[in-house]
Amino acid sequence: MEPGASEAQTNSVINYIHDLGMKTVVNRGVIQTVIAAIGESSKYSTEQFETLDGVRKVERIQVPFKLASRDSHHNDTIVSINNDIKFGGNNPPVVIAGPCSVENEENLLAIARIAKESGAKMLRGGAFKPRTGPRMFEGLGKLGLEYLDAARKETGLAVVSEIMDPRDIDLVCEFTDMLQVGARNMQNFTLLNEVGKTNKPVLLKRGLSATVEEWLLAAERIMDKGNNNVILCERGIRTFDNKYTRNTADIAVIPLIRRLSHLPVIFDPSHATGKWNLVSPISKAAIVAGAQGLIIEVHPNPEKALSDGPQTLNFKNFKQLMKEIQILVSVLGTVNVSN
Amino acid sequence: MEPGASEAQTNSVINYIHDLGMKTVVNRGVIQTVIAAIGESSKYSTEQFETLDGVRKVERIQVPFKLASRDSHHNDTIVSINNDIKFGGNNPPVVIAGPCSVENEENLLAIARIAKESGAKMLRGGAFKPRTGPRMFEGLGKLGLEYLDAARKETGLAVVSEIMDPRDIDLVCEFTDMLQVGARNMQNFTLLNEVGKTNKPVLLKRGLSATVEEWLLAAERIMDKGNNNVILCERGIRTFDNKYTRNTADIAVIPLIRRLSHLPVIFDPSHATGKWNLVSPISKAAIVAGAQGLIIEVHPNPEKALSDGPQTLNFKNFKQLMKEIQILVSVLGTVNVSN
Amino acid sequence: MEPGASEAQTNSVINYIHDLGMKTVVNRGVIQTVIAAIGESSKYSTEQFETLDGVRKVERIQVPFKLASRDSHHNDTIVSINNDIKFGGNNPPVVIAGPCSVENEENLLAIARIAKESGAKMLRGGAFKPRTGPRMFEGLGKLGLEYLDAARKETGLAVVSEIMDPRDIDLVCEFTDMLQVGARNMQNFTLLNEVGKTNKPVLLKRGLSATVEEWLLAAERIMDKGNNNVILCERGIRTFDNKYTRNTADIAVIPLIRRLSHLPVIFDPSHATGKWNLVSPISKAAIVAGAQGLIIEVHPNPEKALSDGPQTLNFKNFKQLMKEIQILVSVLGTVNVSN
Amino acid sequence: MEPGASEAQTNSVINYIHDLGMKTVVNRGVIQTVIAAIGESSKYSTEQFETLDGVRKVERIQVPFKLASRDSHHNDTIVSINNDIKFGGNNPPVVIAGPCSVENEENLLAIARIAKESGAKMLRGGAFKPRTGPRMFEGLGKLGLEYLDAARKETGLAVVSEIMDPRDIDLVCEFTDMLQVGARNMQNFTLLNEVGKTNKPVLLKRGLSATVEEWLLAAERIMDKGNNNVILCERGIRTFDNKYTRNTADIAVIPLIRRLSHLPVIFDPSHATGKWNLVSPISKAAIVAGAQGLIIEVHPNPEKALSDGPQTLNFKNFKQLMKEIQILVSVLGTVNVSN
Repeated sequence: MEPGASEAQTNSVINYIHDLGMKTVVNRGVIQTVIAAIGESSKYSTEQFETLDGVRKVERIQVPFKLASRDSHHNDTIVSINNDIKFGGNNPPVVIAGPCSVENEENLLAIARIAKESGAKMLRGGAFKPRTGPRMFEGLGKLGLEYLDAARKETGLAVVSEIMDPRDIDLVCEFTDMLQVGARNMQNFTLLNEVGKTNKPVLLKRGLSATVEEWLLAAERIMDKGNNNVILCERGIRTFDNKYTRNTADIAVIPLIRRLSHLPVIFDPSHATGKWNLVSPISKAAIVAGAQGLIIEVHPNPEKALSDGPQTLNFKNFKQLMKEIQILVSVLGTVNVSN
Repeated sequence: MEPGASEAQTNSVINYIHDLGMKTVVNRGVIQTVIAAIGESSKYSTEQFETLDGVRKVERIQVPFKLASRDSHHNDTIVSINNDIKFGGNNPPVVIAGPCSVENEENLLAIARIAKESGAKMLRGGAFKPRTGPRMFEGLGKLGLEYLDAARKETGLAVVSEIMDPRDIDLVCEFTDMLQVGARNMQNFTLLNEVGKTNKPVLLKRGLSATVEEWLLAAERIMDKGNNNVILCERGIRTFDNKYTRNTADIAVIPLIRRLSHLPVIFDPSHATGKWNLVSPISKAAIVAGAQGLIIEVHPNPEKALSDGPQTLNFKNFKQLMKEIQILVSVLGTVNVSN
Repeated sequence: MEPGASEAQTNSVINYIHDLGMKTVVNRGVIQTVIAAIGESSKYSTEQFETLDGVRKVERIQVPFKLASRDSHHNDTIVSINNDIKFGGNNPPVVIAGPCSVENEENLLAIARIAKESGAKMLRGGAFKPRTGPRMFEGLGKLGLEYLDAARKETGLAVVSEIMDPRDIDLVCEFTDMLQVGARNMQNFTLLNEVGKTNKPVLLKRGLSATVEEWLLAAERIMDKGNNNVILCERGIRTFDNKYTRNTADIAVIPLIRRLSHLPVIFDPSHATGKWNLVSPISKAAIVAGAQGLIIEVHPNPEKALSDGPQTLNFKNFKQLMKEIQILVSVLGTVNVSN
Repeated sequence: MEPGASEAQTNSVINYIHDLGMKTVVNRGVIQTVIAAIGESSKYSTEQFETLDGVRKVERIQVPFKLASRDSHHNDTIVSINNDIKFGGNNPPVVIAGPCSVENEENLLAIARIAKESGAKMLRGGAFKPRTGPRMFEGLGKLGLEYLDAARKETGLAVVSEIMDPRDIDLVCEFTDMLQVGARNMQNFTLLNEVGKTNKPVLLKRGLSATVEEWLLAAERIMDKGNNNVILCERGIRTFDNKYTRNTADIAVIPLIRRLSHLPVIFDPSHATGKWNLVSPISKAAIVAGAQGLIIEVHPNPEKALSDGPQTLNFKNFKQLMKEIQILVSVLGTVNVSN
């Protein structure tokens, strides 16, 4: 409460909290009174209380992401794909590789073979592409999904692709092993609700300017609808400086998320930096920081890619990176990643 | 090109540009070579060129939002609602008022009457509410739209409400005079495409961290699908400081948008500040800066509102603000707003 | 405390607070324990407590800027210059005008005369200029101060100029009526301490990325050293978008500061926008939002200015703006600025 | 130039550039004219040209930090301390450890011994502390430097400490082996000029919201005054989210700086995260990303430290981290750090 709040104002706030079905504990200090509200607070936003007369400030003590929080679920969640690939816990990091967008079958198969042969477990590729401008290439749609399916059949790699439209949910589920919710849709609540109603694993990218709490609340929404197979993916955030990098790679959220949540967390070095020559060092840094997977853009000729070329590794650099990751993973038993 | 780029690299870039159907003009300097690409460049992202060997930096000279740009359309666009309310040009600013979310019919009617009587021309009210957490109040849905319709019939105010799901487009169009695309959906390209296929006026809020260019490109997408009735709405951006305000009110974009674009631009003081006691001074500032409308949250008892209470004006403060706006509008003939 | 904190951890935190000379009030809840520390808390940072075993989060309830806060000083402080010019309270807004940097005497006198004739009360002009790069024009130094002094004598305008080096304090005090601490020096604590030991009025610009609280704590430092004549100046902040403006004009801090603090607050439209064609609308918006002054860059030929040309008004535009401000000020009696 | 710029405007811009002593190359396109200015452009800011009539946009092609740029100095600079400790190039990363602030001699010696024994090469410790609020502990001053000197003599560790006041330069030089310029002083140009006139190695921390370019220009300023012994130190930046971390650790600038500049770059995990339990994973990540050193806060009882406790490692955690860094360094020959 404000230092000068009246007794009537204080009582009115207490009654308001009781009316919402919560209990109160009240601290009447010399200078200020502090009221604690105890109960199912995640249904209410803090701002709802800030408008009451005499209130100075409202602070949430418990995290609002109950299902996603490690407070309520101590052990790491393992998200498994086809009972085969396992994200999370002490499983070795899973590498997902592939082009930004699926361009044609031949190209995709070439990438898938290299990915498989280098040790990646999953193939990525956009069939539906979010583009800032309306006249740019937006993906092959269903045909792109069919190409991914063909690559999956040939190589045995599992497949992940982005879903943008809730009306496409059956289609994308049919052809993929994991649904990707992109950064721009992290607060597309309609879409989150829909993927939450499926039982497909969901790769949930962090929004460009989403706080850690908003990101975990987006995961919470998917879990609240019934789907617990959520993998969090950091992909760089928007800050005041993008002259030399596309985004700011927020690597510290990897160990942070592993403390706050039981869900697996992976890293996207391609979008996080936007520069292929930073992808390799930052991928290795993410692994050492505790990332449980990587999603990397790879293309035989990045300079010919229809999107995201500057941040895409060619085959040679990708193979080299995969070898180096192997070496790091081999010493990570002695280098405790989670602390 | 890089200072040390080879002749072969330069020629390869030139050929790449020609292959995309554009022309080139080449400046071979003492230190560096600069290549200008001339043609339909809005189909391509600048990054596509950054990956080519020997390229240092790619700069877009022309704005990528051709349809929304004042370069291509010199006169102000007037968006009219029911041939009656007019946004843009030299028309007096239009005030849209109402609750954050529609809560019940009685409440909404009370607000609508006050809005009408104070000089507002449109009624706002959320029937579908985006909420960060999954267990919060998400609006009354269709029932909320019906209440808006009832208020419209009684008061004659036109109605705007948010659309979140592309599958709701017919429903929301049926009951409203203008569709609102919220800040979190500013880059929900699926939704933008759908509202672009209607002929309803669209209130396009700026995303929490959207650049001016991304915002205009979102408008461009709606226009590219055929709907030119776009009104831009600044509603505050996310910055490093949100201790005392919810967002940072970016008032300078009002005169900036009026220079860059021919579309009307309005201002939302409620979300921009998040504090009711800042709503009034910032509303007046926005009008003086050239805003062609305001959208203001009003509620008979803000402290009882199910959402956004802290940023909501009560009736007394709203009426006072409307009077003060009138006074400012009356001197704006002598105070040139657009410069 | 953490939900699982032990009794021993709780007691240890309580003892720690007592050892610092503060009292405690303890709330033992079903889920979590909350400890309130009561006493001279502005000597301690919240982080100091966050490291104690079992602590989840530390929140400061009282503002740390005691001297600058309106909580401790209800009436507006009036800062007066030479017992003549008055900033703050209900005094009409004071306009400070002049070039970014003092370039030569003739030029400065021409500007000073226009400023005087248009109704400005003070002349600004940099003699010591902070420049990002080391090989740029850094001002005329003492000669610049002498030119300012000459212009003061001729026109009767009071003079403000930036101080960058604590060793220059006597020099700058000798030739000016107010010391300016620039945005880049807002947390140059050495410099703040020195200006705090003088009795000159201080124009304290907000840092490029300073929070409102850090800004008020910088004022607090000057006041803590004995100088209460502090005028706060918002000059735009750094955000994620600077493509079309140099900074983001944070106009909402004007009414916010007027609530949080008793000190006068003025606005710098030139740095806040960086574009001369936004200076006029944003100046007027700031006045309507409650700014108690403006500091505006003016130059006879902005395109020839040695610094800040793009954000500088020419004489014609400045005179027009001054007229429009007069009109707005004349209606502000009816338009309540502080609410 | 603007699309509609006149021939006279274009010629006027060309003449303006010639008057500054630079040459021009002009591209007269169908839509727009592009003028290239060639010469000593680092003396001018781009904005100086933006105000000229008819100019749409000014882009700097060459980097403005000539001395610090790898373009002008291809080989890595090695900064050596006392001809013994070597930062940069292929030298193994140098660890600097110590308390945030020097508190007393006994404490400092205990830390210095642990640092030495664990493999650190340098001791850090603040004698002059920048503090946001005016009534907090600001360091022991000269006494703190004397304690550092004593610890240096006993352990043989080299010493670094922060300089805040240009008048302290002789004092701080006398007792230390390297001068630290703190984040808040990265654009204190007075201080940069002074440290540039010494021949002491300088640890230049990145400002809280400094762009990479501003940071390199601060290094450029020191070098321009004659001191080439500059070590860059990333320490986290300010972004929109600081709920769970103090700053955002910008690890990608490590490989970026190694490409843009020849100067050594090190990392401060303590300030970058603000949480001791993130210090270890992020330190290892920084090493793998190519950091040429680390500066880590260590204290026997972080919960009793007078400043920065929450981000400080205790002895046990520090020793464990040093062992793990050793393991990583031993495989880095096979894991190419600079790519």
